[in-house]
Amino acid sequence: MKLPEDPQARAEAIAAFMRIHDQLAVEYDLKLEKVGPGLAEVSLTVQEKMLNAVRLCHGGVIFALADFAFAVAANSHGQVAVALSAHISYPAPARPGDRLIATAREVARTRRTGLYQVEVRREDGTLVALFTGNVFVRDDSLADWMAKS
Amino acid sequence: MKLPEDPQARAEAIAAFMRIHDQLAVEYDLKLEKVGPGLAEVSLTVQEKMLNAVRLCHGGVIFALADFAFAVAANSHGQVAVALSAHISYPAPARPGDRLIATAREVARTRRTGLYQVEVRREDGTLVALFTGNVFVRDDSLADWMAKS
Amino acid sequence: MKLPEDPQARAEAIAAFMRIHDQLAVEYDLKLEKVGPGLAEVSLTVQEKMLNAVRLCHGGVIFALADFAFAVAANSHGQVAVALSAHISYPAPARPGDRLIATAREVARTRRTGLYQVEVRREDGTLVALFTGNVFVRDDSLADWMAKS
Amino acid sequence: MKLPEDPQARAEAIAAFMRIHDQLAVEYDLKLEKVGPGLAEVSLTVQEKMLNAVRLCHGGVIFALADFAFAVAANSHGQVAVALSAHISYPAPARPGDRLIATAREVARTRRTGLYQVEVRREDGTLVALFTGNVFVRDDSLADWMAKS
Repeated sequence: MKLPEDPQARAEAIAAFMRIHDQLAVEYDLKLEKVGPGLAEVSLTVQEKMLNAVRLCHGGVIFALADFAFAVAANSHGQVAVALSAHISYPAPARPGDRLIATAREVARTRRTGLYQVEVRREDGTLVALFTGNVFVRDDSLADWMAKS
Repeated sequence: MKLPEDPQARAEAIAAFMRIHDQLAVEYDLKLEKVGPGLAEVSLTVQEKMLNAVRLCHGGVIFALADFAFAVAANSHGQVAVALSAHISYPAPARPGDRLIATAREVARTRRTGLYQVEVRREDGTLVALFTGNVFVRDDSLADWMAKS
Repeated sequence: MKLPEDPQARAEAIAAFMRIHDQLAVEYDLKLEKVGPGLAEVSLTVQEKMLNAVRLCHGGVIFALADFAFAVAANSHGQVAVALSAHISYPAPARPGDRLIATAREVARTRRTGLYQVEVRREDGTLVALFTGNVFVRDDSLADWMAKS
Repeated sequence: MKLPEDPQARAEAIAAFMRIHDQLAVEYDLKLEKVGPGLAEVSLTVQEKMLNAVRLCHGGVIFALADFAFAVAANSHGQVAVALSAHISYPAPARPGDRLIATAREVARTRRTGLYQVEVRREDGTLVALFTGNVFVRDDSLADWMAKS
């Protein structure tokens, strides 16, 4: 299998593959709103099954949303990028029915490492989470994974 | 509703409540292995539905496991504790079938803040994630939430 | 001692006090470029005494610069804010002679907590560090400290 | 220049070199208490010149202490390791006269990456900072740097 040579088309093909094969993206019905090289915008709507014991949207769900946007942005160039670490802050809560939009952008990229930042906002613009993630870039290509599946 | 006065009994009652009402704990079938004041040990077994697009256990699932152990430890004293921020590093991957154990311990606690550290290990002892979380302690009690449910 | 009632004048008075009494700001000759409520821009020029063993600007110096901008922004409203945690990533190095500018902005603020983000850039715009910090807001006022000194 | 082949002797030689050439280690008069492969224990005594504007030990100084222990541990094997990111939490303050001891240990290491954790304690055992750092391992050796100096 070969990935498209055009960076935008390649980013879109990879994102579409990840959306289908990432089981949390499936479970939470994540929507790819926008994708590009080093860029991803992903949304979800907070449902009952995403709540913690005090009926707020689970930090783990907000993390998963940010993490998926981060992964799509980090893998968008074609090589497999694996997370080394991530930091998340939660300035405001999210509640059932809220639509959340995660916007991931590439802050820096070398041959072997990458730094990404993700903002998660409610539709009214309130910042729900601020996420920073570092990746290590492996030798294998997303194309290998797409060929196998 | 009143929480038990004995710290160990109180921690156990709160953990049992959180295990039932935290939707991710339910979804991932998290097991409470051990609970105490400022302490929680929680396990899961990696299943197909927890994989990312390159068939490793999703960072979001490992985060959710660590985050739940963190939340149980932070809420074990009886007052509601909400996460301000968390940091996670992923020294080694987890794969389908791996049993993961998250151990959360209280590193520091003041009237209004708390610091917790969580280690997630495979059964062979390999460290899969190192997690640090900060909480803000609110005025309301877990007892209020347990009374409502 | 009383702090000015005007938010901008108050932020400036506090920043000037902090610049004089913060020993690292003195040691590194940090310059306050811009200050406002929840906002601070601070610069330094990398000198020989700021290098690590492989002759790059020390991560500890870059941290101290970001941390001071963070502290000025977080204390700008008048109440003492103490750091709970901070995260820093280093996408690019800095070298002797580089002028670095740290820009801190308030991302969120409640009565008791605050979240700040700082970008440290070289003059050519290259991002040298991305910093996120959380504070706990104490009951005492900066005015008390300014009165004592 | 050649580094000793014995891992312990090599770690000690590198630590001694870093202690002399790291300008913050010099400025803060950091003491190497113990060194080994993937391991470092470093101490300092809090002085007037290390205080912030509210007369507590500066977060930047505590960070620098932890960061130096982290750097010594991460470079102890002989290849240059550069920090990608670090996270620090401050559970308790330090004051003038306090002796602080930072203990860094290697949590994980691959050919290209490493994860380290540092605890900073007062002499009475109180935890002052909890630090986690990730490195990227470069191709060059510390021996090259030691030869040049």
